[in-house]
Amino acid sequence: MGGDHGPQPVVEAAATALALYPQIEHIFLVGIEKELNALLAGRPLDRKRLSVVHASEVVTMEDKAVEAVRRKRDSSLSRAVDMVKDGQASAVLSPGNTGAFMAAALIKLRTLPGVDRPGLATVMPSQHGRFLILDLGANADARPQHLCDYGIMGEIYARQILGVPNPRVGLFSIGTEEMKGNELTLEAHRLLKDSPVNFTGNIEGHDMFADKVDVIVTDGFTGNAVLKSCEATSRLIYNWMKEDLTQNPLRKLGAWLAKGAFESLRKKANPDEYGGAILLGVNGICIKAHGKASANAICSALRIAADAITRQVNTLIVEEIRLTHEKEHPAQPAPATVA
Amino acid sequence: MGGDHGPQPVVEAAATALALYPQIEHIFLVGIEKELNALLAGRPLDRKRLSVVHASEVVTMEDKAVEAVRRKRDSSLSRAVDMVKDGQASAVLSPGNTGAFMAAALIKLRTLPGVDRPGLATVMPSQHGRFLILDLGANADARPQHLCDYGIMGEIYARQILGVPNPRVGLFSIGTEEMKGNELTLEAHRLLKDSPVNFTGNIEGHDMFADKVDVIVTDGFTGNAVLKSCEATSRLIYNWMKEDLTQNPLRKLGAWLAKGAFESLRKKANPDEYGGAILLGVNGICIKAHGKASANAICSALRIAADAITRQVNTLIVEEIRLTHEKEHPAQPAPATVA
Repeated sequence: MGGDHGPQPVVEAAATALALYPQIEHIFLVGIEKELNALLAGRPLDRKRLSVVHASEVVTMEDKAVEAVRRKRDSSLSRAVDMVKDGQASAVLSPGNTGAFMAAALIKLRTLPGVDRPGLATVMPSQHGRFLILDLGANADARPQHLCDYGIMGEIYARQILGVPNPRVGLFSIGTEEMKGNELTLEAHRLLKDSPVNFTGNIEGHDMFADKVDVIVTDGFTGNAVLKSCEATSRLIYNWMKEDLTQNPLRKLGAWLAKGAFESLRKKANPDEYGGAILLGVNGICIKAHGKASANAICSALRIAADAITRQVNTLIVEEIRLTHEKEHPAQPAPATVA
Repeated sequence: MGGDHGPQPVVEAAATALALYPQIEHIFLVGIEKELNALLAGRPLDRKRLSVVHASEVVTMEDKAVEAVRRKRDSSLSRAVDMVKDGQASAVLSPGNTGAFMAAALIKLRTLPGVDRPGLATVMPSQHGRFLILDLGANADARPQHLCDYGIMGEIYARQILGVPNPRVGLFSIGTEEMKGNELTLEAHRLLKDSPVNFTGNIEGHDMFADKVDVIVTDGFTGNAVLKSCEATSRLIYNWMKEDLTQNPLRKLGAWLAKGAFESLRKKANPDEYGGAILLGVNGICIKAHGKASANAICSALRIAADAITRQVNTLIVEEIRLTHEKEHPAQPAPATVA
């Protein structure tokens, strides 16, 4: 209910996803029943695989994260997460308030065994491919171990969902050399080097789109800053281009002749197929679609949710984290009892 | 000597700057005498206002920062900073190794009284204007007080050099609300609010180009990450555009007709007039030109160096920092002596 375009794109995406993806057993649409039923009316769809679950409240984009979870107990966002907690659903998807969604997921589902902090991950386009980046803001004050865990979780996601056989994991820093960075990244570098992750070292901003890595690991503050800076730059250039290309008839004609190029550019920069962000490390599959997500984008996100379930991303994370932490802190032999 | 294009653009810029800016009393070209004299030969310039100072070594872009300063004592970079230290020059400009330049400046010149850490600042273009951002990497592990001092220094620079009467200072964070951020920014927010700076609160990545602030304050790790991410995004879009616009004859024709727009775009994104970055907070005016800087960009940087001297940027910083710290930690009355 709480996305920028309300429930319309969600309902449309659910209908399409049921038709396209047989691996999706059932979709529960959680929200104001009357509105959802009105949007469903007349759609040719398999009602045996879709149900509406009523929730009377809506978390808005302006609501404060933790407060929204605590106060609006009957919101679509809270109820949907509850369904995962209660085992009625295996995954939850929301295009609503990101902070509230992350708070609900963390408070209700808790983290996976061995995981201290979840990380919000998304796929970004690169020059000739794509890469996963996390954390984007679930955890603004990360410790080195968190970054190492993000490497493990990101690698599993890239292998299982993006289909990269041996994902290259880079640590975002301010220089490629090992000794470049801040206290956090210097220590995280050491941990990642000792981890089972295919760690390729530091990656700096200049190289982030150069197809050098499949996963970029960073703390939530930096990740959020970097993601938003990239989006802001792209919007700035788009706005400038629009101003410059419409300044006289000759340029307008040129832009019209080359319009295929601009359309292709738009698709590369905003690919609907990526479908949002995933909150890795919580005990349940939690997908955050963009607030402005189209039905197409939400439909892709539903496919990703289904893939994450069938490919057992969370089971693999728990296992890999356990093995890594065991290696870092091997179980001590029991001390001999002193008589 | 150590810029990507060697001394050529520096010599050219010096010649132009002497002709354009009478406020520049004298320029010392520091480097390998023979090379510099060869580049100067035949140029119509006022040799009374220009001298060549020999330095036998060159710091390369690959040299490690502190090591370069310690080992290559007769490098152009070191010698040029020495001249400021010894009072022979009022400002130093280098297009060479950024890390080595910052290390030389900090080691040889030290910080201004009251300033704990210097901050590297540059001007970035915004939608319809420009803004100053610091720190870009002089100080990767900043404390809240450093960010507050950056606000003071940035405000003075924006007023004196960019000509903004009452610069709006924003703190880079991951949300506009006061309670959004990490431990560092939450505390820095409090300090900036209590400081004499015209502090407008948090600014997030999405709004950085929206002409909402004149100065953005951040720690060196985030600043470096953000700057490089913006540059990488801009390059990514440029590369994609080139690919897309040359894919068929129609698009090529369109691009040719609209070429004025692309030229205007290029100028907005890479304005030569900004000329580089300034290391604020060290005891001397230190300007870092881009390694790839053109003669035009270096010439602008020379004008900025001259402006920073005549408008007494450093004197103003010392005064303002002193007043702010006094307000924060007022001098205690002397304790009564106990007989």
